Amino acid sequence: MLYFDNASTTKISKEALETYVSSSEYYFNPSALYQSATSVKQRLEQVRTFFINKFKGKNKSTFIFTGSATEANNAVLHSCITRMDKKYIFSAGEHSSIYETAKKYKEQGYDIEFTKLNQNGSVDIDALIDMVDDRTALVSIIHVSNETGAVNDIAEIVKMIKAKNPRVIVHSDGVQAVGKLDINLKNINVDYYTMSAHKINGPKGIWALYIANPNKFKPFLLGGGQEMNLRSSTENFPAIMAYKTAVERLEFKDYSKHKLAILDNLSGDYTLVSNEGCVDNIISICFKGVRGETIEHMLESKGYIIGTGSACNSKAGHNRVVSQLVDREYIEGAVRISFADVSIEDCVRLGHELTQVVKEYRTRIKR
Amino acid sequence: MLYFDNASTTKISKEALETYVSSSEYYFNPSALYQSATSVKQRLEQVRTFFINKFKGKNKSTFIFTGSATEANNAVLHSCITRMDKKYIFSAGEHSSIYETAKKYKEQGYDIEFTKLNQNGSVDIDALIDMVDDRTALVSIIHVSNETGAVNDIAEIVKMIKAKNPRVIVHSDGVQAVGKLDINLKNINVDYYTMSAHKINGPKGIWALYIANPNKFKPFLLGGGQEMNLRSSTENFPAIMAYKTAVERLEFKDYSKHKLAILDNLSGDYTLVSNEGCVDNIISICFKGVRGETIEHMLESKGYIIGTGSACNSKAGHNRVVSQLVDREYIEGAVRISFADVSIEDCVRLGHELTQVVKEYRTRIKR
Repeated sequence: MLYFDNASTTKISKEALETYVSSSEYYFNPSALYQSATSVKQRLEQVRTFFINKFKGKNKSTFIFTGSATEANNAVLHSCITRMDKKYIFSAGEHSSIYETAKKYKEQGYDIEFTKLNQNGSVDIDALIDMVDDRTALVSIIHVSNETGAVNDIAEIVKMIKAKNPRVIVHSDGVQAVGKLDINLKNINVDYYTMSAHKINGPKGIWALYIANPNKFKPFLLGGGQEMNLRSSTENFPAIMAYKTAVERLEFKDYSKHKLAILDNLSGDYTLVSNEGCVDNIISICFKGVRGETIEHMLESKGYIIGTGSACNSKAGHNRVVSQLVDREYIEGAVRISFADVSIEDCVRLGHELTQVVKEYRTRIKR
Repeated sequence: MLYFDNASTTKISKEALETYVSSSEYYFNPSALYQSATSVKQRLEQVRTFFINKFKGKNKSTFIFTGSATEANNAVLHSCITRMDKKYIFSAGEHSSIYETAKKYKEQGYDIEFTKLNQNGSVDIDALIDMVDDRTALVSIIHVSNETGAVNDIAEIVKMIKAKNPRVIVHSDGVQAVGKLDINLKNINVDYYTMSAHKINGPKGIWALYIANPNKFKPFLLGGGQEMNLRSSTENFPAIMAYKTAVERLEFKDYSKHKLAILDNLSGDYTLVSNEGCVDNIISICFKGVRGETIEHMLESKGYIIGTGSACNSKAGHNRVVSQLVDREYIEGAVRISFADVSIEDCVRLGHELTQVVKEYRTRIKR
């Protein structure tokens, strides 16, 4: 089975799993006071420092480790959305853990606004900056679209936002960016940044939230005061150590030839959503008049796993982001191809098979 | 090193760790639509059913798997505390993830009340039932005290509460009860019940929240709508499978002789907080005029790990629950002994060593 759904989740690497297993020996509660426990706590703090150094966090910044990206993203909104007289801006291409939460606040009467998207799923920067004003308290923009791979130039966006109103807090969901772009948080200059382990061959159940100004963060989970009082809960030491291993093993590969290998061997009536300005290893394509889900099933029976888009959108029955970007008759035919450990030959074969499967589908429908 | 801090956390069993490793092969996102993913989803649903059967959940009840007990407990309060004209009652012996969250709501102006405790740390039932009235919307009572091991008779408490006002929602934090008591949720008749994997030799980073009436639950984490829309976030499949293994391996042992072995060999001026009505394998003892933390360090150097109480209270500098139960000069000398896989001989030795260490401490102080 060839796996082309890496944007959804990845398999934990042998190395990260080994770290998980070996770290399970150090099972003591990091908040206990005896030496066996405080030494676990020290190792935890070393991982925190490793993250700050690796991703170039600002002076006095920190990371907390959460139980989900949803928790991390919900926590940022919980901390920042506090006043009815302020404005909170989101891209229309945010991950559902931001989008659905923002919608809930909107229902409660908060001034929540969504910016429109460019054709490839990136945020329309001019429209965004137009919306920023004196009342704006928070802007949250996904770094790399989980649906289309479109890259938002967060550094530039932050610069433009803060030029207009330096008090605006900026969050970026970097779950799809880590491992694809070289993240330098000092340069990007965001206040919050969300990262995930399970998208980069780390374990499931552990995420990291960068907090530039810990003093300004209002904790989301309350209790024992773990993680410098920023996130209460017994720390998941083995998963945090395995996450570190995953980050250490990150390497940047050029996937442009892989992308071309797929597209060059693809034919039929389709819209390439991931056109320009996207990472090469997330490709969103919409076929006219077919059902993406059926294409997915047909391809799986031939040994290829692709996605129809974010699994976090699967409940909605259609792809919320992509449906903003393509003509009506292409929406249902959305598929998402995302990958890391595949060869160019695999990509050539996928292009062929996908073309073949769409043809078969259309032949069936005609009969 | 002999480990007597099981109430704080436990080591993952070889079997649960093996399940974690083997389940990591099934890495597909359970919310994706292809067959490799839906088969993971099916296995997840089987675990949910296993939990419902194992703990005798009501008809139409369910479990969600959370990233922390703090998340699960915070979620219950988030779902239930919604009106300023209602009353919300908590025991003064709740875990900090309930207590601190309740305090936050109190600061916001909600009517939050705390019941007093009996000498062993259990809730004063008469005082509790006195507080319940027509305005009461939620009562949350810990099942087994994480500090003293005191057992609250939740079934009886629920019966008395609902006799007075059948609309009251009752939550119980069962983190310390699972594995020590045989849990029958139908009999207990609670609306919510919190459980933990890492207290029963399962993995860290995974907890379960029982929800008797899913229709009445207001989700805490919003996003992709996973877990029947009750908790958004990519499911932590390997940890959930390992949790199941931990539950399957639960066995009830009689620890009364272990407790006696410790207490019979203990002397010096102390108050036994865990007197009657407590589980046998959590023992809270307060020594007069000594510092529990120092005792803990001295014992560790002799090869015994005990606690000073909940690690989730360690930040506070004193034990919030125990300090309500003993005379002033005993508060600082609180230690908590909790265990599972130790022999009676180990307990005898611990009693001796603890006596010895307290003597040494006092001799030092006198000089």
